[in-house]
Amino acid sequence: MQIKKSDFSEWYNTIIKEAELCDIRYGVKGFVVFMPWAVMSMNRMFDMYECELQKKGHVPALFPALIPESYLTKESEHVEGFVPEAFWVTSAGKNELEEKLAMRPTSETAMYSMYSLWIHGLKDLPLKIYQRCQVWRYETKATKPFIRSREFYWIEAHDAFATKEEAEAQVKEDMQMAENILHQEFGVPFHFFKRPQWDKFPGAVDTFGADTLMPDRRTLQLPSTHLLGQHFAKPFDIKYMDENEEEKYVWQTTYGPAISRIYAAVIAVHGDDKGLVLPFDLAPIQIVIVPIYRKDSEKQVMKKCKEIQKKLSEKYFVKLDDSEGTPGSKYNHWEMKGLPIRVEIGPKDLEKKSVMLVRRDTLEKKQVKEDNLNDEIEKARTEIKKNLVKKADSWFNKQVSEADSIKDLAKELEKSGFIKVPFCTDELEGKECAEVVKNETHANVRGTLYGKNEKPKGKKCIACGKTANVYVYAARQY
Amino acid sequence: MQIKKSDFSEWYNTIIKEAELCDIRYGVKGFVVFMPWAVMSMNRMFDMYECELQKKGHVPALFPALIPESYLTKESEHVEGFVPEAFWVTSAGKNELEEKLAMRPTSETAMYSMYSLWIHGLKDLPLKIYQRCQVWRYETKATKPFIRSREFYWIEAHDAFATKEEAEAQVKEDMQMAENILHQEFGVPFHFFKRPQWDKFPGAVDTFGADTLMPDRRTLQLPSTHLLGQHFAKPFDIKYMDENEEEKYVWQTTYGPAISRIYAAVIAVHGDDKGLVLPFDLAPIQIVIVPIYRKDSEKQVMKKCKEIQKKLSEKYFVKLDDSEGTPGSKYNHWEMKGLPIRVEIGPKDLEKKSVMLVRRDTLEKKQVKEDNLNDEIEKARTEIKKNLVKKADSWFNKQVSEADSIKDLAKELEKSGFIKVPFCTDELEGKECAEVVKNETHANVRGTLYGKNEKPKGKKCIACGKTANVYVYAARQY
Repeated sequence: MQIKKSDFSEWYNTIIKEAELCDIRYGVKGFVVFMPWAVMSMNRMFDMYECELQKKGHVPALFPALIPESYLTKESEHVEGFVPEAFWVTSAGKNELEEKLAMRPTSETAMYSMYSLWIHGLKDLPLKIYQRCQVWRYETKATKPFIRSREFYWIEAHDAFATKEEAEAQVKEDMQMAENILHQEFGVPFHFFKRPQWDKFPGAVDTFGADTLMPDRRTLQLPSTHLLGQHFAKPFDIKYMDENEEEKYVWQTTYGPAISRIYAAVIAVHGDDKGLVLPFDLAPIQIVIVPIYRKDSEKQVMKKCKEIQKKLSEKYFVKLDDSEGTPGSKYNHWEMKGLPIRVEIGPKDLEKKSVMLVRRDTLEKKQVKEDNLNDEIEKARTEIKKNLVKKADSWFNKQVSEADSIKDLAKELEKSGFIKVPFCTDELEGKECAEVVKNETHANVRGTLYGKNEKPKGKKCIACGKTANVYVYAARQY
Repeated sequence: MQIKKSDFSEWYNTIIKEAELCDIRYGVKGFVVFMPWAVMSMNRMFDMYECELQKKGHVPALFPALIPESYLTKESEHVEGFVPEAFWVTSAGKNELEEKLAMRPTSETAMYSMYSLWIHGLKDLPLKIYQRCQVWRYETKATKPFIRSREFYWIEAHDAFATKEEAEAQVKEDMQMAENILHQEFGVPFHFFKRPQWDKFPGAVDTFGADTLMPDRRTLQLPSTHLLGQHFAKPFDIKYMDENEEEKYVWQTTYGPAISRIYAAVIAVHGDDKGLVLPFDLAPIQIVIVPIYRKDSEKQVMKKCKEIQKKLSEKYFVKLDDSEGTPGSKYNHWEMKGLPIRVEIGPKDLEKKSVMLVRRDTLEKKQVKEDNLNDEIEKARTEIKKNLVKKADSWFNKQVSEADSIKDLAKELEKSGFIKVPFCTDELEGKECAEVVKNETHANVRGTLYGKNEKPKGKKCIACGKTANVYVYAARQY
C-alpha cells in the first residue's frame, strides 16, 4: 500500500482505517467508534496522566453527565461559550422534563455546584479533583477522527485555592505536567501560548494552550490550563473562612488533557509512509515475534519462538504471530499498526543462537544473541523514546518564523508553522486585527509565547499599523 | 458516633455520608456525585475486572453514548425493556434533531450496528469486546446511592461466536470470572440464578444473575450474564461465511458487571458498627501510620514514622497522618473510612524497636518488631482477604431456607434471605404465580439455582397448587 505522509490529510484517513483505530460509520453524525487498538493506547495515556495527577495531590471523582440549564447559565461568559454547543435532554421515558439538561460539554458548573457545599474553611483547601470522562459538544466545524468529534474523552482537573498565588502556581504545575507526559513520554512537542483575551476559555481570566503542529504545519491545541480567578467562585458562592474569620472567595484553575486528541497528535507526529509508529510504552503490543520456516524447520522454530515469547512476556506485552500468511505480510501488518519491536526467528538464527531485532521507528535490523535479548530490548526501548522525541523536536523547532507584514506572514505560512508577528494588543481590542489576519491569510492569532515576554521595539501591528505592543504567533489551525 | 449495622438502612446512609463516598445533593433527581474515596476503590475494581477480561481474550473499545431511536427499536423485546427508561436528546444548540437520540441505557444496539460491519468470516470470530462506561436509566423505583441511581458505571462485554456451544461456554466463563473477582477478591458471596423467562434481560434467550444479600437479607443483583442466542444477530444482520461458504448468523452473549453497584455490596457485606471495612487491595490507602507522642518525643517519633512510611511506600499505598488531633480521633476517622491496617508508633515502640499493628477487619492489635514489619503486613494482607471471604460466606450460606406454602414462605422470609419453593414453571406461564407470591409476601421469584437442576417430587406450586416442575428461590429484593 502506498501512503505518503507528505499528503497528510489522505495519509491520516488511510492510517485511521488501515490500522483500525476508529470507525466513522456509526449512525449519528460526528460520533465515531474508538476501536481496540486505539483504546488500548488511550488507556495507557489515561493511566500515565492519572498517576501524575495523583502524585501532584489530585484525587479522582465522578460527577453527573447531565447538567441543569440553570447551572450552565450561572457564569455569563460560560453561557455564551457552551450553551450553543450543548446536546439537550428534554424528556425521559414518556415524560417531558421540567428543566432541560445539557450533556456536559465541560464540567465547571456541575463540579462547582458541589464545591460550594464542600468548601468551608482553610482545612478544605486546596481542593484538587479530577475526573476521567466523556464530553459532548455540538461542533459545527467539520469533524475528523480523534481531532474533532462531537464526543470525546478527556481528563478535567478542577482546583480551588485560598490565594491567587497558589492558583497561578497550579497553572505552572499543569504546564510542567504537559512537558513531563506529553513531550517526554509521548514525544509530542508543543509551545504554550497565552491566548488572546478574545480566544480564552469562556469564564477564564487567562487561558494557556499547548499548541503542537501536524505534519501539514497546521496547529492543534492540546492540553490547556485556565486561570479562572474568582469568575466562577462568585456566582457559585464558593467561599471559605480565613484565619481572621473573614469569608473569602476561592481562586480556581482548570486543566483539561483531551486524551483522544492527544492520541491524534501521537499518530500524526510519529507516523511514516508505512503506518503508525507508537512509543514503546503506549503500544498495546510492544513486541511481535514472527517465525520464519520451511516445513522441515517448523517444529524447531516454533519451539524457540514460544520459549522467547514466554521469557519476554514476564516484562512486556508480547505477541507470537503464528497466523497463516507470509512473514512479509506480517511485517507489513505490524508496521502499519506501529508495533515498536519485531523479533524474527528462522532456522539460521537457531544455529547461531541469535534472533533478528527490528525497530519500527528506524526500521533498523540488528542481529542479537539470544542471551542478550532482554538487555537489547531494554536498550531499544530507551533509544526509541529518545529518538522519537529528538526527531519530533528537530522538525518542530524549525517551524517558527517571523514576519512584519500581512504579506510576509502569508508567505511565511507556506514554509513554517508558527509565525511571530508584531501586533497591537492581545487584549479584547485586538480582536478586529485578528479578524483581518484571519481573512487575509487563513491564520489564527494563537497568543503570546508563554514565559518569554517578547516585546517588539519600534514595530507596527501587521493589521492596523498602530504601534505594536506585543509579539503574537499566527498559525493555521485544526 | 453510634451506628448500628443491625439497622441496615440507617447504617448505610450514615456510612455513605460519614466516610464521604457519595454526595446526594446534586441538582438532578436520581443523579449523585461519586466522591474520591469511593472512586479510588471503584477504579481498582475496574482495573481488576479489565485485566481479567483481557486475559480471557477481550479487548476494550469505546462506542458512542448516544443511540438513535431506530437502533434501539430494532429488537422487539429490547424496545419494550429500554425505551421507557431512556433519557432522550431531542435538540443540540438551537437545532431540533431529525431523529431523537437515547443516552445509552445499555449498548447492545450501538455495538451490534458495528458488529454487522466488522464480522464477515470465521477469521473475525470470536469477537470479544468490552467497554468501560456510564449508562443512564430513567428509574422509577426509589434511588439509593451505588445501589440504584439514574446514572451508573459499569463494564459491558459483548461477544459474538460462530456456534451456540461457544456462546454457552462464554456464559460459564463469565460466571467463573464473577467467582474469581467478586467472591475471591472482593469477598462478596452470591448465587447464580437462571432468571425466570418473564424476568430475563430484554432480548436475551436466558439471563443468569449473581444475587448477593444485603445485611437486611434483601437481595441485590450483581453481574449478570446473558445468552442472547441469535435474537440480535437477525435484526442487526450479523452474519459470517462458514467453511462451506454458507452465510450464518452469529451467536451472542453479553456480560455486565456494574462497578458502582458492586461497590455497594462491598460496603454492605464487610462494614461494621465502626464504619467501612475495605478489602486490602481495594483500599485507596492501605496503611495509615499514626504517631503518638508528647512534646519531648515528637521529633524522634516523627522521624521513625517518616522512615517507616518511606519503606512501606515502596510496595503499598501509605499515609502518615501528621494532622492535628488526638490519636483517638484519627483511629475513629480511619476506621470509618475502612482503612485495612493501622500502624501506631510511640516513644515506647522506639525503645523496643517495634510498632503496633492494628487490623481494621478484626480490630486486633499486635506488637510487631520493626524488622519484621514488611512480612507481618504481607501476612495480614493475606489473612484479611481470607477472613473477609470466610466471614461473609459463613453468614451468606446460612441464608437459605425452604417452604412448601405461601404462608411458610412469608414466615421463612423473616429469618432467611433465599427461600426455596416448589413452583409450577419458570417459563412465561409462571408469571401469574410469581405475581401472587409478590403480592402476598413482597418477595420476588429470582429463578432456579444455576447448575443444580433441582426438581421437586410430588410437590405442588405454592401459588397455583398445580404440580410443581421446578424449585425456584424467592427473595425480597433491592
